[in-house]
Amino acid sequence: MLSSELPTINALKTPTSFAWVEQAISNLDTILLDHSQCERKAAGVALNMIFRYPSNAKMVRELTKIAREELEHFELVNQWLDRRNIPLRPLQPPPYGAGLKAQIRPKEPERFLDSLLVSGLIEARSHERLGLLAAHCPEPELAKFYHGLMASEARHYGIYWVLSDTYFNREIVRQRLDELAVVESQLLANLHSEPRIHS
Amino acid sequence: MLSSELPTINALKTPTSFAWVEQAISNLDTILLDHSQCERKAAGVALNMIFRYPSNAKMVRELTKIAREELEHFELVNQWLDRRNIPLRPLQPPPYGAGLKAQIRPKEPERFLDSLLVSGLIEARSHERLGLLAAHCPEPELAKFYHGLMASEARHYGIYWVLSDTYFNREIVRQRLDELAVVESQLLANLHSEPRIHS
Ligand SMILES: [Fe+2]
Ligand SMILES: [Fe+2]
Ligand SMILES: [Fe+2]
Ligand SMILES: [Fe+2]
Repeated sequence: MLSSELPTINALKTPTSFAWVEQAISNLDTILLDHSQCERKAAGVALNMIFRYPSNAKMVRELTKIAREELEHFELVNQWLDRRNIPLRPLQPPPYGAGLKAQIRPKEPERFLDSLLVSGLIEARSHERLGLLAAHCPEPELAKFYHGLMASEARHYGIYWVLSDTYFNREIVRQRLDELAVVESQLLANLHSEPRIHS
Repeated sequence: MLSSELPTINALKTPTSFAWVEQAISNLDTILLDHSQCERKAAGVALNMIFRYPSNAKMVRELTKIAREELEHFELVNQWLDRRNIPLRPLQPPPYGAGLKAQIRPKEPERFLDSLLVSGLIEARSHERLGLLAAHCPEPELAKFYHGLMASEARHYGIYWVLSDTYFNREIVRQRLDELAVVESQLLANLHSEPRIHS
């Protein structure tokens, strides 16, 4: 099991295994299809938070920008699917997203903090994995595309972190991020059988 | 009751009353706050349809564009709120949206058609009312802003119509649009007591 050559966002507890890279590179079409769903979900999650916390002006402003960018990514990934003649169709998601969502504590303000941190961790992992695709994808055009997206996802991670730090005490944020990051890495410890961005 | 000087999209059965214009112009701040919610909801509705019908490539493509534009409008309206020192806060919506949503038949494919047409009618009415605000708003800068948005809303109406026409028989679309347009006008027949974009 080789670890990635890329610097990882330090929130992530464990780097992605090379087994994931091999699985992804051998299934680029499925990865693109799942990636499309990820971008759509990322937009949906940001928009849902705007609906749930409509009075938090700074959060609304930042998450509107994120939602717009995720929709742009969704469009771009769908153009790649189109170019490769892969029809849009829903894929069974891996356990990762639901596993993380289950960590969100139901009561406020914990729910708000956990929602921000879970989104942040997903962005951090997406950044890492898009970086691995950029580095290992055998198709230069597609590799370039992944490279172009990875910077946004790192920025999105940063925004979720700054928002947590805006609305909550820094020590509480750090501690909870640490707990959630352990779970995040555990959820990816065994490679999921189906190739996915978060398998 | 004066009718609008603007040409209306011919789907609308009844033009907006001058009473609405007077109510809106006397409550520009509340109208801006409600407008922000409308743009957010318009983005949410488009995104929900993408989630519900993820395999309809043409619909996904068009509604992604709409969702992106609605988020841009949301951002622009929020900048206006900011400039006027109006803090973001949720407003009780008027009965209009829920009344139209209640018309969506629960079974497919009727649900899909009705969802497209209800969204189209809301866009058509938004176009008309933003046009009235553009024409009557006493603040030239704000009037210009409304004028800039009204063209997008007319285009959105057109997209929902074309999508209906893509996935359904034209005669069925026309007949159902006609039925829903009657309800849409009835829902606005009595001015709602609270100033709203769709009061
Ligand atoms: Fe993205
Ligand atoms: Fe992202
Ligand atoms: Fe809009
Ligand atoms: Fe619109």
